[in-house]
Amino acid sequence: MPARTIHSELHDRLEIALVSPRNPLNIGAVARAMANFGFSKLAVVAPYAPHWREARSAIGADELLQNAKVSATLAEAVASCTLVVGTGTLTHRKPEQPVVALPDLGPLVQRELAHGGRVAIVFGPEKHGLTREDLALCHLLVEIPTDRQQPSMNLGQAVAVCLYELASRAFSPAKKTHPLPTTPLTDTSAEHDPAAPSADLELLANVVEEAMVAANYSPASMRDANRHDLRLLLRRLAPTKADTRRILGLFRRILWRLNRPQAGN
Amino acid sequence: MPARTIHSELHDRLEIALVSPRNPLNIGAVARAMANFGFSKLAVVAPYAPHWREARSAIGADELLQNAKVSATLAEAVASCTLVVGTGTLTHRKPEQPVVALPDLGPLVQRELAHGGRVAIVFGPEKHGLTREDLALCHLLVEIPTDRQQPSMNLGQAVAVCLYELASRAFSPAKKTHPLPTTPLTDTSAEHDPAAPSADLELLANVVEEAMVAANYSPASMRDANRHDLRLLLRRLAPTKADTRRILGLFRRILWRLNRPQAGN
Repeated sequence: MPARTIHSELHDRLEIALVSPRNPLNIGAVARAMANFGFSKLAVVAPYAPHWREARSAIGADELLQNAKVSATLAEAVASCTLVVGTGTLTHRKPEQPVVALPDLGPLVQRELAHGGRVAIVFGPEKHGLTREDLALCHLLVEIPTDRQQPSMNLGQAVAVCLYELASRAFSPAKKTHPLPTTPLTDTSAEHDPAAPSADLELLANVVEEAMVAANYSPASMRDANRHDLRLLLRRLAPTKADTRRILGLFRRILWRLNRPQAGN
Repeated sequence: MPARTIHSELHDRLEIALVSPRNPLNIGAVARAMANFGFSKLAVVAPYAPHWREARSAIGADELLQNAKVSATLAEAVASCTLVVGTGTLTHRKPEQPVVALPDLGPLVQRELAHGGRVAIVFGPEKHGLTREDLALCHLLVEIPTDRQQPSMNLGQAVAVCLYELASRAFSPAKKTHPLPTTPLTDTSAEHDPAAPSADLELLANVVEEAMVAANYSPASMRDANRHDLRLLLRRLAPTKADTRRILGLFRRILWRLNRPQAGN
């Protein structure tokens, strides 16, 4: 079995997003694993070390590191993605999104890409993982089935394991070991309408939130909690692009009415 | 899906053998991945650095490192194993053993363990991988399906990927995603006789080799090649423990005859 070129056009629609990685060696290890499995889109969010691009262990992955996209927030990094998958150890908190075991992630990613979508797999900082705020941008969480005694993986190893799973079971058209799940993840009655990218959902969330404030929906002390729940809700609903545009239109209209200086009715 | 204890009695019958690892950080990373996936048996063969046990990145895996078995040769490290699986990039050489893609390894390992066997997964030094001599101790080779452009993985990442695959698909009794292969790997007509451990095969190989020399089977210049081919042959034949004992008895007898001082007959 000789080595093959496994990279395909599909691989370019999956990105790895690293939120505030601390150790440049880990960034290098991530880049190397990406190159091993044919992936090339790396997004680095608010990196800790200024010289992270010089990460030493990126054997054969220098170009990938040079082309990495940097942003200040995760929202920017995943703006164009239609399926955002968070990672992390779920030992200490109750997940607020659907959780999928890594061996079952392949078909979901495969389906999303087949429908023309873009996928991000998001990894948090080495020490404490993704914040609740970052997780609110995720449609679902993936769990690597590790041992309770030692659940927390090294960042470079966690990325390698995820990409191995996807490369062998979501990007390999020859073999489909998993049947497609019967309940589609982001399906709606409008079959041909693509899922809304993360940026559209953020825009919608912001307008809805403004409307909530303008409508005096809840006391100021509740705003952070509402903002969070709203983001989770939108991902769970997974509106299409057209849905999102429609709801946005509605809320803009509402907002305009709410902010209109009181005059008559 | 809360984290579970995935370690089981079966996990203790799979060992990871590292041949001449150079970088203690990599040994630490291997130990950590082993702990993540519930494995504990680490064998280190001819380590390069004397202080490798102090490997820093072995978060939560100190005990595992302290208990690691050290040996001078791979033959010693895998002596008790009935299925020895070599790893490495197969780009530069034509494999002499059967090659299995990692996604297909689970059922073979599962079967071997179910029959009471012991399995070793062997990783070579970081730079050049396993030697031809080491590979001759392997029953089969496993290939991680990487991209031709960048086939060579970091050691810690390669181990993590292999253990993830096995932990999720060979050690998880709840789900069997792969059917068992129809042609058994080391099966013989004697169903209940366990496979011969590596040490028995080595003993047999040595006696056969002595017999070859004593019989003047081939010129001295061919001995290394013969020795190598003999080892490969024995793994391919995969004799049971009883088979091995029987063949050994035969060759011991032959050898005794060959070495007997010439007298009469």
